[in-house]
Amino acid sequence: MSEERLVTQITPKSEDFSRWYVDLIRRAELADYAPMKGMMVIRPYGYAIWENIQRLLDKRIKDTGHINAYFPLFIPESFLRKEMEHLKGFAPEVAWVTHGGDDELEERLAVRPTSEAIIGYMYSKWIKSWRDLPVLINQWANVVRWEKVTRPFLRTTEFLWQEGHTAHASFEEAQAETLLILEMYREFVETELAIPVIYGQKTEREKFAGALATYAIEALMSDGKALQMGTSHNLGQHFARVFNIRFEDNNQDLQYAWQTSWGVSTRLIGALVMAHGDDSGLVFPPQVAPIQVVIVPISVGNWRETVLPVATEIKNNLKNAGLRVFLDDRAEYTPGWKFSEWEMRGVPLRLEIGPRDVKNNQVVACRRENQVKITLEITGLETKVKELLAEIQRAIFDKALSFQKENTYEVEDYKEFKSILEEKRGFIKAFWCGSEECEAKIKEETMATIRVIPHPQGEQKKGRCLYCQKPASIAAVFARSY
Amino acid sequence: MSEERLVTQITPKSEDFSRWYVDLIRRAELADYAPMKGMMVIRPYGYAIWENIQRLLDKRIKDTGHINAYFPLFIPESFLRKEMEHLKGFAPEVAWVTHGGDDELEERLAVRPTSEAIIGYMYSKWIKSWRDLPVLINQWANVVRWEKVTRPFLRTTEFLWQEGHTAHASFEEAQAETLLILEMYREFVETELAIPVIYGQKTEREKFAGALATYAIEALMSDGKALQMGTSHNLGQHFARVFNIRFEDNNQDLQYAWQTSWGVSTRLIGALVMAHGDDSGLVFPPQVAPIQVVIVPISVGNWRETVLPVATEIKNNLKNAGLRVFLDDRAEYTPGWKFSEWEMRGVPLRLEIGPRDVKNNQVVACRRENQVKITLEITGLETKVKELLAEIQRAIFDKALSFQKENTYEVEDYKEFKSILEEKRGFIKAFWCGSEECEAKIKEETMATIRVIPHPQGEQKKGRCLYCQKPASIAAVFARSY
Repeated sequence: MSEERLVTQITPKSEDFSRWYVDLIRRAELADYAPMKGMMVIRPYGYAIWENIQRLLDKRIKDTGHINAYFPLFIPESFLRKEMEHLKGFAPEVAWVTHGGDDELEERLAVRPTSEAIIGYMYSKWIKSWRDLPVLINQWANVVRWEKVTRPFLRTTEFLWQEGHTAHASFEEAQAETLLILEMYREFVETELAIPVIYGQKTEREKFAGALATYAIEALMSDGKALQMGTSHNLGQHFARVFNIRFEDNNQDLQYAWQTSWGVSTRLIGALVMAHGDDSGLVFPPQVAPIQVVIVPISVGNWRETVLPVATEIKNNLKNAGLRVFLDDRAEYTPGWKFSEWEMRGVPLRLEIGPRDVKNNQVVACRRENQVKITLEITGLETKVKELLAEIQRAIFDKALSFQKENTYEVEDYKEFKSILEEKRGFIKAFWCGSEECEAKIKEETMATIRVIPHPQGEQKKGRCLYCQKPASIAAVFARSY
Repeated sequence: MSEERLVTQITPKSEDFSRWYVDLIRRAELADYAPMKGMMVIRPYGYAIWENIQRLLDKRIKDTGHINAYFPLFIPESFLRKEMEHLKGFAPEVAWVTHGGDDELEERLAVRPTSEAIIGYMYSKWIKSWRDLPVLINQWANVVRWEKVTRPFLRTTEFLWQEGHTAHASFEEAQAETLLILEMYREFVETELAIPVIYGQKTEREKFAGALATYAIEALMSDGKALQMGTSHNLGQHFARVFNIRFEDNNQDLQYAWQTSWGVSTRLIGALVMAHGDDSGLVFPPQVAPIQVVIVPISVGNWRETVLPVATEIKNNLKNAGLRVFLDDRAEYTPGWKFSEWEMRGVPLRLEIGPRDVKNNQVVACRRENQVKITLEITGLETKVKELLAEIQRAIFDKALSFQKENTYEVEDYKEFKSILEEKRGFIKAFWCGSEECEAKIKEETMATIRVIPHPQGEQKKGRCLYCQKPASIAAVFARSY
């Protein structure tokens, strides 16, 4: 991520997926490299997506009874040390503040890699009685993880996210919360980002440092690799014991609280690029697209007098109807240049309007995701555009779902497993005996990991472990991943 | 801010203003102390105010043509060193990251105290031609300043803010932007926070490190001290020269860009407490109150069957009308306890409803800011409540404006100046010769500083300098300040 090359042409997706990804992100001005290792600047066009994600997800977080708060950026080293499992998981990735002004600090401060420790400490002060439970708090914040290998949006030293932290009176309540959030994430990602996901539990090896159980949603990117899109952890009483979060129950006995934590991040923007993009560039689902409709006037003859006023009126009508619209009336670019520019930038719907269209009271609408053009009457355009955008949203999801189905395999034989990974990648369903050794060997030999153990497991068949061939009852989903 | 004392009773405002302020913030659960020096946790009730501020101000920022983006948390030390004036201003307050994981960094990273340096660097890459101007970007972010003396919301090691950073083709454009934002802040603070402000230019001594000119809005808190509420800087070409932000103008000549920066922070929440609060607790203007209306059912007899259903219906109707409502149906507290609790928490309007009220199809409405009670018919309650909230908003502003007027003095004599500061504080208008020496002496002897030189200056009289008695043409506003 230290590369400073100027992007003029985007490497074709089919030629080099990774390069296509970063070229596109920079050329479309979603993000740019910052001059510090592994850090990026989220440019306005990319940040607008994050604002849409925040707005749509924050509503769901609040509708399920959660409230927002803000906890400190810094966490004393001793707090992380209180919880060795957690510390071990994050220590190699922590950025340490050692000086305030000219003075060396008595104790180093971690720039938060996640906030369980500081929030656990505060909860121990706030929670005294069963009346104080549940505590259902979320925060929108930046976090820092000192990553060795970085890629814009997918893995950056600093990223933006939301982290929910809840406390409950029982295991059952905490487990219900964990699964409620998993389902909230699934519904959000499928509905708004138009990305179909699989979901379920992580293995012991892949779970969050300090959690009892980690659940995740995972999606298939268009290169056949999996991307973890969000996680929901049942923390059990682990952090409650470390930070002494206790409450007096109905019988006046002191009990440790049961906790959960959960988060999604700006990584979701990278997922949008990789799940839907094509050789012409980005393809944004209307629900989160920074611009939903771009209007391109055909600049011939006295278009400023004839076409532009009509285009402006259309823009205003669409805006008033609540749509995100941009009228590209720049004189210094041709309509053809604008067409490919806005295709590259993934705007779901383009309206073209020229002198003849004005006479005929019509516009030509071009859908980004399938390049199909249709003619629409200007009268009542708002309604038709809204319908069309809903249709585009569905079409983008359906296409991604077809891709996921076509690239999901059920495998019993390890050789077949390996050859699918070599040739096609995708999700591979296979039985696993549950041993960490088999899991590790598979990863070592194929670079594939267990993405999730689907939850619930559904009609329970039994089979043989993909690796050791011993009887196995766990149906797992494997993939290579980001 | 390291104090861990449990707050059960709030110190009366008249007795000890500072203690009243922190007691109230903790007792009302706006914020709590974090276990690190000078840091706080913004609790949900306080954070809800910030969310309201963000929503209302973000709309104004966007309506004036700005867009949001996100720049990195860390700034390389060498970037700050490029600009010595700026560095000198911030160096004593910078938190330094020296280690990533186990490795010492080659170059220390500053946790951003403000983002001119990193944004200047990025703008130098993005701005090439007059066509790229103006750049009108804002970010919502956290910043860190290692302060020696801290107080919740007013001055904390970490705080939340928005920082606008713009680039323009000429001095005139940059100056127009600087004043546009000053006016936007004034209108926002007066309209939404109901706090009247004075506004104008800062002196050389008080201006932002690296700016050509700093403008500010300032308000009088109810202890007679001034609080800086927001600043708007014309940066001139200073940072453009340092970071080489150049554009090709119409004549293909290379020019340095002209810049501005501007911000308001979570300090505004502290201002709300200090400007409007009284001995009964917080007084929030309806526009930013976390809860605008609290409904307290009078829990007598079979109130759960008779009163509660009506109260619930009222809550739903008010919610559907777009209001922020809380129905306090907790059985473990008495109505009387709830009355004073919600008064302390500053809810602008309380609706009381008992069995007799239900029979009479009415509620008793009690205004927080003046404690006046009136009876309202339940039919059509939404409209009446909205009108009442608008009236309360105006009344809170008018009260603060009267206070400001009563505590603004025009003074020619230095002795009188000193005695006003000792006895009453407030804003003091006086002439100043413009010398830094007089300014410094006044501060040394009275702890008062020039808050602003009102802009525009209005009908220009001439007088004599408050301190040196030489002829002076600058009409300045002095005050002791936070």
